[in-house]
Amino acid sequence: MTLVDLAAPPTVDPYPVEELELDLRWWAAANYLTVGQIYLADDALLDRPLTHADVKPRLLGHWGTSPGLSALYVQLNRLIRRTGTPCLYVAGPGHGGPALVANTWLEGTYSELYPAIGPDAAGVRALFRQFSTPGGISSHVGVATPGSVHEGGELGYALVHAAGAAFDHPDLLVACVVGDGEAETGPLSGSWKVPAFLDARRDGAVLPVLHLNGYKISSPTVWGRSSDEEVCSYLASQGWAPVVVSGDDPRLVFTDLEAALRGAHERIAEIQARARSGGEDLRPGWPAIVLRTPKGWTGPAVVDGVQVEGTSRAHQVPLSGVQTDDAHLALLERWLRSYSPELQFTAEGRLAPELAALAPDGDLRMGSTPYANGGRLRRPLDLPVLAGYAVDVPSPGTTSVETTHPLGELLAEVYRRTTTPDGGGDFRLFCPDETASNRLQSVFEVTDRCLQAEVLPTDDHLSPHGRVMEVLSEHLCEGWLEGYLLTGRHGMFATYEAFAMVSASMVVQHVKWLQHAADVPWRAPVSSLTILLTSTCWRNDHNGFSHQGPGLIDAVIPLSPAIVRVWLPPDANCLLSVADHCLRSTDHVNLLVADKQQHLQYLTLAEAAVHCAAGASVWEWAGTESDDGSAPDVVLAAAGDVPTLEVLAAAELLRREVPWLRVRMVNVVDLMGLLPPDVHPHGFTPEHFRELFTDDAEVVFAFHGYPRAVHSLLHGRPGAGRFHVRGFEEQGTTTTPFDMVVLNRMSRYHLVLAALEHARRTPEHGAALAAHCREMLLRHEDHIREHFEDMPEVRDWSWSG
Amino acid sequence: MTLVDLAAPPTVDPYPVEELELDLRWWAAANYLTVGQIYLADDALLDRPLTHADVKPRLLGHWGTSPGLSALYVQLNRLIRRTGTPCLYVAGPGHGGPALVANTWLEGTYSELYPAIGPDAAGVRALFRQFSTPGGISSHVGVATPGSVHEGGELGYALVHAAGAAFDHPDLLVACVVGDGEAETGPLSGSWKVPAFLDARRDGAVLPVLHLNGYKISSPTVWGRSSDEEVCSYLASQGWAPVVVSGDDPRLVFTDLEAALRGAHERIAEIQARARSGGEDLRPGWPAIVLRTPKGWTGPAVVDGVQVEGTSRAHQVPLSGVQTDDAHLALLERWLRSYSPELQFTAEGRLAPELAALAPDGDLRMGSTPYANGGRLRRPLDLPVLAGYAVDVPSPGTTSVETTHPLGELLAEVYRRTTTPDGGGDFRLFCPDETASNRLQSVFEVTDRCLQAEVLPTDDHLSPHGRVMEVLSEHLCEGWLEGYLLTGRHGMFATYEAFAMVSASMVVQHVKWLQHAADVPWRAPVSSLTILLTSTCWRNDHNGFSHQGPGLIDAVIPLSPAIVRVWLPPDANCLLSVADHCLRSTDHVNLLVADKQQHLQYLTLAEAAVHCAAGASVWEWAGTESDDGSAPDVVLAAAGDVPTLEVLAAAELLRREVPWLRVRMVNVVDLMGLLPPDVHPHGFTPEHFRELFTDDAEVVFAFHGYPRAVHSLLHGRPGAGRFHVRGFEEQGTTTTPFDMVVLNRMSRYHLVLAALEHARRTPEHGAALAAHCREMLLRHEDHIREHFEDMPEVRDWSWSG
Repeated sequence: MTLVDLAAPPTVDPYPVEELELDLRWWAAANYLTVGQIYLADDALLDRPLTHADVKPRLLGHWGTSPGLSALYVQLNRLIRRTGTPCLYVAGPGHGGPALVANTWLEGTYSELYPAIGPDAAGVRALFRQFSTPGGISSHVGVATPGSVHEGGELGYALVHAAGAAFDHPDLLVACVVGDGEAETGPLSGSWKVPAFLDARRDGAVLPVLHLNGYKISSPTVWGRSSDEEVCSYLASQGWAPVVVSGDDPRLVFTDLEAALRGAHERIAEIQARARSGGEDLRPGWPAIVLRTPKGWTGPAVVDGVQVEGTSRAHQVPLSGVQTDDAHLALLERWLRSYSPELQFTAEGRLAPELAALAPDGDLRMGSTPYANGGRLRRPLDLPVLAGYAVDVPSPGTTSVETTHPLGELLAEVYRRTTTPDGGGDFRLFCPDETASNRLQSVFEVTDRCLQAEVLPTDDHLSPHGRVMEVLSEHLCEGWLEGYLLTGRHGMFATYEAFAMVSASMVVQHVKWLQHAADVPWRAPVSSLTILLTSTCWRNDHNGFSHQGPGLIDAVIPLSPAIVRVWLPPDANCLLSVADHCLRSTDHVNLLVADKQQHLQYLTLAEAAVHCAAGASVWEWAGTESDDGSAPDVVLAAAGDVPTLEVLAAAELLRREVPWLRVRMVNVVDLMGLLPPDVHPHGFTPEHFRELFTDDAEVVFAFHGYPRAVHSLLHGRPGAGRFHVRGFEEQGTTTTPFDMVVLNRMSRYHLVLAALEHARRTPEHGAALAAHCREMLLRHEDHIREHFEDMPEVRDWSWSG
Repeated sequence: MTLVDLAAPPTVDPYPVEELELDLRWWAAANYLTVGQIYLADDALLDRPLTHADVKPRLLGHWGTSPGLSALYVQLNRLIRRTGTPCLYVAGPGHGGPALVANTWLEGTYSELYPAIGPDAAGVRALFRQFSTPGGISSHVGVATPGSVHEGGELGYALVHAAGAAFDHPDLLVACVVGDGEAETGPLSGSWKVPAFLDARRDGAVLPVLHLNGYKISSPTVWGRSSDEEVCSYLASQGWAPVVVSGDDPRLVFTDLEAALRGAHERIAEIQARARSGGEDLRPGWPAIVLRTPKGWTGPAVVDGVQVEGTSRAHQVPLSGVQTDDAHLALLERWLRSYSPELQFTAEGRLAPELAALAPDGDLRMGSTPYANGGRLRRPLDLPVLAGYAVDVPSPGTTSVETTHPLGELLAEVYRRTTTPDGGGDFRLFCPDETASNRLQSVFEVTDRCLQAEVLPTDDHLSPHGRVMEVLSEHLCEGWLEGYLLTGRHGMFATYEAFAMVSASMVVQHVKWLQHAADVPWRAPVSSLTILLTSTCWRNDHNGFSHQGPGLIDAVIPLSPAIVRVWLPPDANCLLSVADHCLRSTDHVNLLVADKQQHLQYLTLAEAAVHCAAGASVWEWAGTESDDGSAPDVVLAAAGDVPTLEVLAAAELLRREVPWLRVRMVNVVDLMGLLPPDVHPHGFTPEHFRELFTDDAEVVFAFHGYPRAVHSLLHGRPGAGRFHVRGFEEQGTTTTPFDMVVLNRMSRYHLVLAALEHARRTPEHGAALAAHCREMLLRHEDHIREHFEDMPEVRDWSWSG
């Protein structure tokens, strides 16, 4: 591969000067609209001299990055017109929102999607007034921005979103601007390794544009202060073939950028043609552009005697005194008029026809591309009927399987059905190198792990054309999947439960995206984001405390109830049923919590379907309720696989020792159902809640995660104080599975003791049973204390213990 | 700077063959002890032929990375003996725990710190039996491992911890092994930029060793399949001067590694000497080593006809059938005997004296270095008395300041007091480029932002010798601070509240570290980790929804109550008081939540000290309680600055309109105090809780974060159901500050309506007041709806509204 391509300018076709001049005029119009959004409440097209009263009362927005973003937009438009290539524009510098809004207005998309912002003078005025205004739009690129699959608030994910969008979209070119501030983040730094995972045969292209303007909010950036050679060799070492476009003279920069894009497009076409005609070309040196332009380019150079353009002072609002200071106001007017609005816009405030002609046609406009509104491309996932994957459960609690294994078989069939003749498809599994560890290895019967590298004989199911995405980065897995879903496809992220926290902030931001998208009428529904949390806290006994953490549940519970669902299937058939539901659903974020180890199985597939659809049920076969309809003495509830095991074992002990105590067993799959129905759309109805938990019986509740999460959900339910929740209390170490439930006071014995303490009636023989439980716990303590010396076989304790 | 230094081997002093042979024998001993830990329950020194009964019942552990880690340990020992340089060993491949345990046992540290694991045969047996065993130690490098400041469970943070350890420790060499699996993560990828922040004049050195053995759990790694040229140019582009050491012949690799370390040490000494004698040398090309050795080096090459050494099959337990399979058992015995334990250990199982002599002396042993047990180095932070920084508060709610500004002045004085003549010190502030944005800019009166780059005239408070650490990465800020604290210093991480979620998983892991450390007797207390969450959800109205998220509170609440505290100071003096407390404290993780914008101020410093020490108080001046001691009709409670404002405004409305209604106003600073005292050591006593909230009055509680977090804490308190919590309900956008509280139903009007609804008595004129509130909310709705057209001045609503 080519390491550094600095000295090799691409073949330059003529860029006729009249076309350059037109492109510069579009750019001037875009810059004008950007400045206008930040500053102007009125006199939007400068029909008269500007007054202080025309300026917005509160100046918000980010000028610094915007001119560069618009320059690239202009040049991509030219590329699209010239080649017909569908392009997606991912704007990493999210604070460049006004630039993307300006360009999508210029191309006509904005007014089509938002009729209140028309393509005329009134529209320009409204465009300005809505920006960073209550009831209006934010200063970030985001959900409301036409053409965006990327929210620019939390920095770091531009390039992972771009890669996710390009996977399995062979015709697509994803241009991705990375700001030099964002480039300092960990996730962005990790995401440059796209060339190791992008298959030229079946994927589209990602064209990163590292936009170095030198400063973040207030200090220089690391890459901004690095040499061209350093930056290029950084990119080249990771599989890119970068070229540098640098300068502050618009004509020269436009000319160079045009040539760079032309060269990039040609190189991509060559790479893809070679790969698609059967050539094998690993890490072919994908084009990349390093674009160095001044921060706040074309803005005020000096304000109050201080340099602004090219410094961090251009980051937000370069002229801060315009509301009261006449000199600042004059500077603003001069700045605005430097873009010659009277040339770029007609008397009616429409874009001049010769400029309007520069926009690509219809859906090729980047604001209109269906790739950025993935619901328009999405087809329902081709899922098989579940029966073929069900675990045989002759009676509850008699067979054991690795709960996630049948799901792996189902996903293998999904891969089988969705793989297209060219080797692409619309489903992918993303996993940090744990697909087999998580017992989903059946997928490798259909496809391989993806890596653009020579495959050695010692490798296991590895291929450049594999479509299982394994990379040791939760950020990449999560971000790739987000990009993949938002551009109309399906997928799942399977990960160790504890380390799902690594990408928790991304999940939070994706929930916010979906919540906001529900209010944006033109956005069509996209597939839900489904995260399988496995290798859970209870069964990471061999890995120890760092691997034991169910915190992602707590991180998503407070988010939008319209988006978030948390599922705790107790066994394999329930996991199949829930996964099937989640993979068919749209616009949700689903956490599926299910451990990968051998677990007892309880429900047939038919029973599982009924149970999961209800969200929670009474398991009559496990309880000791009377037939006379009288209330139970105590309710034992469980949510999660290990809690279910312990509750069932506790129920068995109670049944055996105090058989006339009326114990009800409830299993909860749909955690958010515990929230009142006026809070969550899937909150159990009051009637359902009463059927499960009665109105007043004490409930001993064994929960997979941190116990107080359940208390937070139950507030507002009748008698929330009667729930006694046991769960993961952050007690962990390298130990046995049973010791884990003892350490966290959720063992069968603890549950029996709690049930006896809280039961409505003190049962005969209750004291003897309690003594037995305490004795067993003491014996266990001795057992663990002596374990280090005894070293007996370390095993799980069976259900009948 | 030097870009790639492949062709320039360092000057090689003789490495006499007899010394090489001794080093290889230490390595053999370390490998022996590593394999023994994974496999052997008995016959620890192979005094007799191995039997199935000698093998552990459960085989856990990770062989793959261990031999390489031990090889580096041996060579660092040699370097330390030769030069007397204090070294810290940061082992990124955390699953290499047994290797580090083995080496620290060999050097004698282990037995000194853990007398039960003696330096003899019984100790070896105990060492083996404790590993990955209940009651024993985990397979990761971590808290219990001598010489570690790094937990190897969640990958990605080795190099940030290493850099944090090196800052302001001018004599220290931090050797940091980065596994090629870990190198795929985002945070690790982002952390290579150390040379842009490491000051040769006052900081120690970080020597990264990128250990490429080619595979992670089951697939090849990106760097493992990259060429030497690619890897080196990746490192060189970021300021490193890498050399490659590669091979599988131990003698050759040892010789090359010795030379590489010798060269690295010489180069570091030159760099530091130049910088410390007044030379300016930005990014001088810090040495780095790329070490390519086979995964599972010296282990079984082939098992059952399948290649194991050098493949992912060597990752964990290369021989899985040893408990029952005679051939596997024979392979294990042959493997163990290949290390000639009879030569390396005496008949008593002690390390052979000629090998024991290879260990450095005393605290120079890497397992004993005080740098890894920072509490031994830590001196209390030199904090000034607070009085000089207090805000003048003549009466509550009459003055406004930016709440974080006085804290910035305090921190400036801390910098002033702690800066040493050589420009170092023991306090640093870490912040993602927001120090000034967060109103802490007073620190720049004392020191600058740190960047190893040419300083331009347009830069603002920038210097290679600055000690405010600004990098646009929450991962780097958090990780650097962790490394800084664990090696005995003090600091603070100040960040936008919403984006604190980016590094949430690191905070979780640090809490786990401190929780575990409390059980490790030899670990001395270290300074608490203090995170200032500012630019909060309520006052990111200009940035919009992506910037509005108080979720870190929810992420830490369920963690160890012995470690976690969450502070919500309502004003500047309370923030000073709390920050002072946190900066003096040890072994905690403190979240401080305080917005940076202008806020009303309520308490004098003296009042603040009493209030914060109590954790929560009744603010009598704000309530309308009778003097006769009778119970209030309703309690209004607040936790957080904006909630306090709204509650006070609500109380004023109630006082004005229904003056005889008895309203109590409670302010909560110490959030975890709401937990029952048997759950959290700082839980308010039942008496204190009753004094605040009575036993049965209804409580309308305005909370800074997600409301159900409070419900989760209150479970177990008397009448938890009487608390009606309002807070951030994940309703956000670009709007006014007041609209934010309206959108989330926490406005003064909502609080009045809730108070009237829940008050014990229906007050006279209550209906009129309720009507007034509803009217005001309707008017606000109109106001916001029309805002886009009206565009009045966007302002906060004052307290008297």
